[in-house]
Amino acid sequence: MADQSLAAPIRCKAAVSRAKGAPLVIEDIVVDPPKAYEIRMKVLCTSLCHTDITFWRGKEDFPLPPVFPRILGHEAYGVVESVGERVEGFAAGDTVVPTFLGQCDSCGGCASAGSNMCSALPFVVGPGMRRDGTTRFRDSQGEPLHDFLAVSSFSQYTVVDVNQVVKVDPAVPPKLACLLGCGAGTGVGAAWRLAKVQPGSSVVIFGLGAVGLSVAQGAKMCGAAKIIGVDLNPDKEELGKKKFGVTDFVNPSKLGESPLSQVIIEMTGGGADYCFECIGAASVMTEAFRSAKQGNGKTVILGLEKDGKPISLPSIEFLFGKCVMGSLFGGMKPKTDIPILAEKCMNKELELEKLITHEVGLQEINTAFDLLLQGKSLRCIIWMDKLEV
Amino acid sequence: MADQSLAAPIRCKAAVSRAKGAPLVIEDIVVDPPKAYEIRMKVLCTSLCHTDITFWRGKEDFPLPPVFPRILGHEAYGVVESVGERVEGFAAGDTVVPTFLGQCDSCGGCASAGSNMCSALPFVVGPGMRRDGTTRFRDSQGEPLHDFLAVSSFSQYTVVDVNQVVKVDPAVPPKLACLLGCGAGTGVGAAWRLAKVQPGSSVVIFGLGAVGLSVAQGAKMCGAAKIIGVDLNPDKEELGKKKFGVTDFVNPSKLGESPLSQVIIEMTGGGADYCFECIGAASVMTEAFRSAKQGNGKTVILGLEKDGKPISLPSIEFLFGKCVMGSLFGGMKPKTDIPILAEKCMNKELELEKLITHEVGLQEINTAFDLLLQGKSLRCIIWMDKLEV
Repeated sequence: MADQSLAAPIRCKAAVSRAKGAPLVIEDIVVDPPKAYEIRMKVLCTSLCHTDITFWRGKEDFPLPPVFPRILGHEAYGVVESVGERVEGFAAGDTVVPTFLGQCDSCGGCASAGSNMCSALPFVVGPGMRRDGTTRFRDSQGEPLHDFLAVSSFSQYTVVDVNQVVKVDPAVPPKLACLLGCGAGTGVGAAWRLAKVQPGSSVVIFGLGAVGLSVAQGAKMCGAAKIIGVDLNPDKEELGKKKFGVTDFVNPSKLGESPLSQVIIEMTGGGADYCFECIGAASVMTEAFRSAKQGNGKTVILGLEKDGKPISLPSIEFLFGKCVMGSLFGGMKPKTDIPILAEKCMNKELELEKLITHEVGLQEINTAFDLLLQGKSLRCIIWMDKLEV
Repeated sequence: MADQSLAAPIRCKAAVSRAKGAPLVIEDIVVDPPKAYEIRMKVLCTSLCHTDITFWRGKEDFPLPPVFPRILGHEAYGVVESVGERVEGFAAGDTVVPTFLGQCDSCGGCASAGSNMCSALPFVVGPGMRRDGTTRFRDSQGEPLHDFLAVSSFSQYTVVDVNQVVKVDPAVPPKLACLLGCGAGTGVGAAWRLAKVQPGSSVVIFGLGAVGLSVAQGAKMCGAAKIIGVDLNPDKEELGKKKFGVTDFVNPSKLGESPLSQVIIEMTGGGADYCFECIGAASVMTEAFRSAKQGNGKTVILGLEKDGKPISLPSIEFLFGKCVMGSLFGGMKPKTDIPILAEKCMNKELELEKLITHEVGLQEINTAFDLLLQGKSLRCIIWMDKLEV
């Protein structure tokens, strides 16, 4: 049992998102002690994911309204600072990755091999810690700051639920462990756990951002024979082929009259075994479905549709054995699978470091936003101790 | 090797569909001898499936244009009359079920555990035998009559490809064996082979026609704990519960303001494990998807969309682990699975005889159409020898 008398509020720096689309502000904030079943951790590094951008930008037509002021960030790595009551299995000094998805290991969802949706601590975008709906953050005026996905890693300290944190081997480099918490984990997991890519199969990846390139690494790890990357950005061809296992590349803007799906069907001799949509565009989801092989071609939806549009699918093609699936976090159970992927990073089965294009200090976090918005970065690591870089 | 010198054209009766929506005409026709890899069989009984109705009705907006004159029918049972060259494993006198889906057992599709789409003899609606595109039927004037699905069982004799015929134990009652060839097989197979319904799970069936009720039997056979039938026809409640294993019933016309999916979500404590769409209506497909459980709820599309409309699905729900799948013939491999289901019929694991509501002779085939069109029958067996009943 933790000694709660030791736990006091911590003052530290955080990047606060005060208004939609406005630059983040580095502020002095207060992080409350962990409550029961919670862990307070020192964040060593975090990285910026498109989902942070989505909630920061707060577009009108997005189905989930943004809230401000908020501390964003959900891909991170750090060290346990203190634990609340009833926390078992964690102690100060443990190296950990927080996760937006909970895993209690005792509910029906966690018990099911085919599900990663914990029903004891269900996934909600929030804000609010999932047990009591409250926040652990206050600004220097004492006003509450909302959390994000109950992770909020754009702060030097944060509080997470014991079901939303995974212990990792301290030998894993911090910036690699950090990536496993969302984007890279989602991509690799989608190939490995959700689609279960088979050796010798054909894979098409629509959108070669960080998630799509991670799908490529996951597909390569699973032994796919053909990995076709699809992207409008011609620079992605060399990148995908040199670093991520992409074997073929299609730029949809260079196909003339030919529909993309027709081109894929020809390239794969009848349709791909697996089509991954990593963009979040309903029209691309449809095209991915059309590109899948009859019989048992799987289409995997990983992107969150940008405008909240529904997907339109030709119903007759389902009768020919096609299947559409999706998941959060690539279908992975965080506590089970993150340590396995961390080990694969260590033994070079996965080379996620190739996703890291930039590194900055917390003070430069808005640069990380600019780079991602301009399509110049895949992952920018933000080091929390380095306020001046 | 078969002695081709014995094979001569056969004159017999058939029900010919001469124009869309017009009553079938019982005519004297000629059935050519089987070519290489083909079998000529005497049809003992056949039954009428909605797909026959669809191609007979030939609605303008249906994506596949109907052709006439045509011999419809694709659920049947009979006896091998003669075999063409290069036919192995079949001989005159064998009791068989023809199938619209081929199985060569040597192509990639047949070799794949997850697919029932044979690529050596790919599924086409036709018309035309799948190896050479021609027909084996002529009318009394010598004019060709088109086939249907390369089965055409509304004739006392028909010719089928060796890859489209399954040997069954002669102990299986003919009318039960007949049902396995399409509708009942599709429904049972969808629960058993495609969705792989797990013991203790919850199942919702949208549409309690012959396919839907067969899904109920398949789900019961797999050990489902809750089988919810959904139908606008109130008579289906008693039928489903008394005879087919349905445990709960919902009539969507009696829900007032509550959306159907919301009602299902409440009945199942969070969404069903499996939702089967057996109607062929895009709006019901969407509702089925909404009714499925987050985490790993499966939606199974069995109905051919009546108007060729696409399905519209809320893309964000895929991210919560939902999956949509479909297949022809319930994902079953005909030669592998029909004999297994025939055995389950014999040992009463399946009670498909409950689907048989009517029996007529060939001369009365238009009565069978009327009964199905009026929703009065599930399956009407048409006995080919009984011209006068």
